[in-house]
Amino acid sequence: MAEKEMAAEFLREGERIDDLERNGYRIIQNAGRFCFGMDAVLLSGFACVRPGETALDLGTGTGIIPILLEAKTKGKHFTGLEIQEEVAEMAQRSVRLNGLEQKISIQVGDLKEASAIFGCRRFDVVTSNPPYISGESGLKNPNESKAISRHELLCTLEDVVRETSRVLKPGGRFYLVHRPFRLMEIMGMLHRWQLEPKRIKMVHPYADRSANMVLIESVWGGRTGMTVESPVIVFEKPGVYSREITEVYGY
Amino acid sequence: MAEKEMAAEFLREGERIDDLERNGYRIIQNAGRFCFGMDAVLLSGFACVRPGETALDLGTGTGIIPILLEAKTKGKHFTGLEIQEEVAEMAQRSVRLNGLEQKISIQVGDLKEASAIFGCRRFDVVTSNPPYISGESGLKNPNESKAISRHELLCTLEDVVRETSRVLKPGGRFYLVHRPFRLMEIMGMLHRWQLEPKRIKMVHPYADRSANMVLIESVWGGRTGMTVESPVIVFEKPGVYSREITEVYGY
Repeated sequence: MAEKEMAAEFLREGERIDDLERNGYRIIQNAGRFCFGMDAVLLSGFACVRPGETALDLGTGTGIIPILLEAKTKGKHFTGLEIQEEVAEMAQRSVRLNGLEQKISIQVGDLKEASAIFGCRRFDVVTSNPPYISGESGLKNPNESKAISRHELLCTLEDVVRETSRVLKPGGRFYLVHRPFRLMEIMGMLHRWQLEPKRIKMVHPYADRSANMVLIESVWGGRTGMTVESPVIVFEKPGVYSREITEVYGY
Repeated sequence: MAEKEMAAEFLREGERIDDLERNGYRIIQNAGRFCFGMDAVLLSGFACVRPGETALDLGTGTGIIPILLEAKTKGKHFTGLEIQEEVAEMAQRSVRLNGLEQKISIQVGDLKEASAIFGCRRFDVVTSNPPYISGESGLKNPNESKAISRHELLCTLEDVVRETSRVLKPGGRFYLVHRPFRLMEIMGMLHRWQLEPKRIKMVHPYADRSANMVLIESVWGGRTGMTVESPVIVFEKPGVYSREITEVYGY
């Protein structure tokens, strides 16, 4: 399809198509809204979806995580749940753009009701790149759609963890990306909801800087005892991605 | 003093004197017992003792941590508590060997009773490099003294944390080195004893290997919210310490 026709069919005003450099997949984004970041890419590299498994992404936004997981794993089916109708509709267009309607479904809905929407004990894997900032703290982004993606306005971390605990099958795995600042709170919460942290990976912008992201794998009903894996160092020097980022994550 | 006379005055059978390469300080060790490791050295580099502060080391063994902290900080006084009488006596000889009797005192006693021995709210800083292995798990080292240092035979992690919480002044700081495998349990326990984790540093043997130690700073009565600092990578390649280890830790 010619670029112009494709744009006419798939794009709305203010949107653009970005190449994911993975299976030839592309994604539709709107610069006026929340665009996916390194967080989502790292989470999709950290998460493990085994052949035949089903995965749910809570608060999927552009649909980046289901699309990347479909590209990277042999999972059977991927679902993305998104509360903002126009955002979900855009994600659906990205799914169609890549011809993935059989593998990925995008559902409009509130993640606080995920277990009511999908039922309990339904998924092998849950992923989430939720808002990082506690509802009350810091300045809100004046753009409402971006604020919903960044601040806990429509859901809290506890909502994400509680619903994950309900929709996961026993032994199912939860992959979360979040800020190290809240690690204590996150780990306590996961533990209270039977999601035992088993694998942690810190993400540092540079080798000599504090972590600005943390990736956590929890197992529903898992035993205590965890591994802190080798850290991800994003930049070798300013503007130059580390070899790990270019090789493993395909940046 | 000539080497021979010094040995006669300070050493017992099976013991040796090691140079700490710090202020000309030396330490007496017995290869048949537990010798200090990288853990203690990294903890003494991670811990912060401010001018005029007092510090207590729970389960001090050879006394390595008080001796290194005396060398590295401007703390006013350092106390080491050790349950094994002969080990404490050896640590006392190391203190004398370095002429530090005014700055460091080694006390024989059970850390489970630290708050009874010293009283509550007494120290600005507590450090500990406790046994890592849960009492029941794994094989016990047949050598009793080593086993006490490595396995939770005479004290559990909860004993260490509880007594720390009691002897620390409000706002006081606790520095712990432990295994990442037990991080979940450790963080929950610290939180329950009002010791809020504020600063964490992972120690990886190589850049691409999982962490084998974790350094944690907790603050008595601190607010939630933590920093995961840049990781320590011990070896650049087999047998070659990284620049950080040689420069910062003086290996």
